[in-house]
Amino acid sequence: MERPAKVIYLDHAATTAVDPRVVEAMQPYWTERYGNASSIYSLGREAAQAMASARATVADILHCEPKEIIFTSCGSESDNLALRGVAFAQRHRGKGHHIITSSIEHHAVSHTCEQLEKYFDFEVTYLPVDRYAMVDPDEVRRAIRDDTVLISVMTANNEVGTIQPIAEIGRIAHERGIPFHTDAVQAGGALPLDVNDLHVDLLSLSAHKFYGPKGVGVLYVRKGTPLLSMQTGGAHERKRRAGTENVAGIVGLATALKLAYDHAAENNARITALRERLIRGVLESIPDAQLTGHPTQRLPNNASFVFKYIEGESILINLDLLGICASSGSACSSASLEPSHVLLAMGIPAEVAHGSLRLTLGRENTEEDVDYVLQVLPGIVKKLRMMSPLYPGNK
Amino acid sequence: MERPAKVIYLDHAATTAVDPRVVEAMQPYWTERYGNASSIYSLGREAAQAMASARATVADILHCEPKEIIFTSCGSESDNLALRGVAFAQRHRGKGHHIITSSIEHHAVSHTCEQLEKYFDFEVTYLPVDRYAMVDPDEVRRAIRDDTVLISVMTANNEVGTIQPIAEIGRIAHERGIPFHTDAVQAGGALPLDVNDLHVDLLSLSAHKFYGPKGVGVLYVRKGTPLLSMQTGGAHERKRRAGTENVAGIVGLATALKLAYDHAAENNARITALRERLIRGVLESIPDAQLTGHPTQRLPNNASFVFKYIEGESILINLDLLGICASSGSACSSASLEPSHVLLAMGIPAEVAHGSLRLTLGRENTEEDVDYVLQVLPGIVKKLRMMSPLYPGNK
Repeated sequence: MERPAKVIYLDHAATTAVDPRVVEAMQPYWTERYGNASSIYSLGREAAQAMASARATVADILHCEPKEIIFTSCGSESDNLALRGVAFAQRHRGKGHHIITSSIEHHAVSHTCEQLEKYFDFEVTYLPVDRYAMVDPDEVRRAIRDDTVLISVMTANNEVGTIQPIAEIGRIAHERGIPFHTDAVQAGGALPLDVNDLHVDLLSLSAHKFYGPKGVGVLYVRKGTPLLSMQTGGAHERKRRAGTENVAGIVGLATALKLAYDHAAENNARITALRERLIRGVLESIPDAQLTGHPTQRLPNNASFVFKYIEGESILINLDLLGICASSGSACSSASLEPSHVLLAMGIPAEVAHGSLRLTLGRENTEEDVDYVLQVLPGIVKKLRMMSPLYPGNK
Repeated sequence: MERPAKVIYLDHAATTAVDPRVVEAMQPYWTERYGNASSIYSLGREAAQAMASARATVADILHCEPKEIIFTSCGSESDNLALRGVAFAQRHRGKGHHIITSSIEHHAVSHTCEQLEKYFDFEVTYLPVDRYAMVDPDEVRRAIRDDTVLISVMTANNEVGTIQPIAEIGRIAHERGIPFHTDAVQAGGALPLDVNDLHVDLLSLSAHKFYGPKGVGVLYVRKGTPLLSMQTGGAHERKRRAGTENVAGIVGLATALKLAYDHAAENNARITALRERLIRGVLESIPDAQLTGHPTQRLPNNASFVFKYIEGESILINLDLLGICASSGSACSSASLEPSHVLLAMGIPAEVAHGSLRLTLGRENTEEDVDYVLQVLPGIVKKLRMMSPLYPGNK
């Protein structure tokens, strides 16, 4: 499989390369410090110590206690554990069976809600969003019922980058004593994650979104939040998530998270400037192009668009031939031919939603990368439109 | 934290060091081939290709189709998915709510069964075992009811090493059309895993038990077996396990599994000889010592004992001071002070079960390692007995 000589990676929302410093931090835990963290001998205690240190690092960044951190295998597991774990625990305590979420969640939340409805008799309210994919906190307030057991709204959308009013929603949830979960997988490494400022009880993260390894995530669970373990077995993670701990991965996650927040301000400033250059350039050079997501309340690295009359997939293939990695939306639903549920929820017509493109910047991107995209993208869109039966000029 | 100059690692059932060849195979997937396997550009296709190749390798060893392999985050997840996934799918289809398992399963199975009973109204039959921890297939046959939806019996016990008559149990399950799961986590890398010979529908593996990385496992699921996904979200793993794939870990798992089976015959022969030397030496040199588990139908690497009048924990601490890593039973329950449920199920009295020691050999162990243990262990046991109020000589 040939890869173009120069790759411009603009899909950091899908995944990131592991930072070499993270690889180095993980290295000793493969062949030397390989002990099982549950074992009592020195080799095991070494592993347990590494885990404790990683847990403290993560807790420090989230402004919580180390014991409120559960290490998981990915953001999807964190979301699933938050939703299933709270829903089943709450129902067992007789609290009810109603869940509130938004209509623009990652599938790890929305499909879990759908399964809880279909197989486990929960009722779910999917809140609408405005044209910028923003949830209105007043809608949350109105949706709350006496039997509401959980509210879950993502911190920032993975497709269009819109940042939600999490703290406000959290305050509303807490007024009513309802646990509040946020999927912060896309926000991790970029936005502040103080769980008290955000008024959240559960928060999901995934290491591979912030230059850590794939296969490891975090679920923060505020002390006292009802949670039924969804992976039972040994007493790992205070009986909330069984399974021999992925020590190397956990060390990698903590190292990556710390690196991200040690340099968040300057990285965000630099990447936001690139994003603005990219957005401005695209909108100026391509007719019938529309920025998707909120114009200002958006992730520093997200530039997402819809281009009328063409298919996002075709753009991607053309970009790939030029060595540019991009996405039409979520990598997790790239096998699907359906238009994005996020774009549809924003009121974008299905035929327009098909023409979506998500460019997500990262640490290694430069102005030259952005300018190269701006140089080639207008031509690609134009060429595809020339071939499109939908394009007015072709009718 | 100081580690003794020379470590003799005899806890391979808890975890293993990653084989350097496995580390090397994973290496490119951190910083170079870091694509998301769901992405359509070349970097993503490279990752998807690596996953496909790993899946084919595992399928080859299990004698199944690649699409019957689900990559998970560990053995515990595999067990949980097998039990929960089949139980809920079967009940949804109106098949019933009765599960059959043994009384010597790993907690990933037994605690999951207990939660299914307590929170989800399933009924579970826990089959007894004989004094060697062996399940009688006739007991399985007798326990089957019209509403039995799943049978789960481990391939080999993690504490005492007894190998179960899986093929026979599988045939009985299949006569009645009941899905049969086996937790093969301890057997992986050592015993043959032909899913057709074993007559199993679901089989769990964990990479870190066979010199692969922690944080990655396998669940084999025979085509047509009802399974409700327990981690919903993206369409990964054919919608049976959502979450961005841990490409490096999966490549590591497949590499480790292949290395294990390429050399299983010679490794097993060498390790079995060491085990016999160890068992013989212990029984000859230490009075009131008893081998636990089956004398011949046992894992090649497992030498497990009970020593009357003393605590297993105390033995471990003394061994650790001499640089010997061992376990009193399962690493996953080492935080517990309860005697092993496996030893109790075998009819060993609680006060004797407290004096358990598990020595599990591995590739790097030598005759010198075994002889060193045989040199120091009798003295440790003697010393502890001198201090024990239970020891008849002290009364």
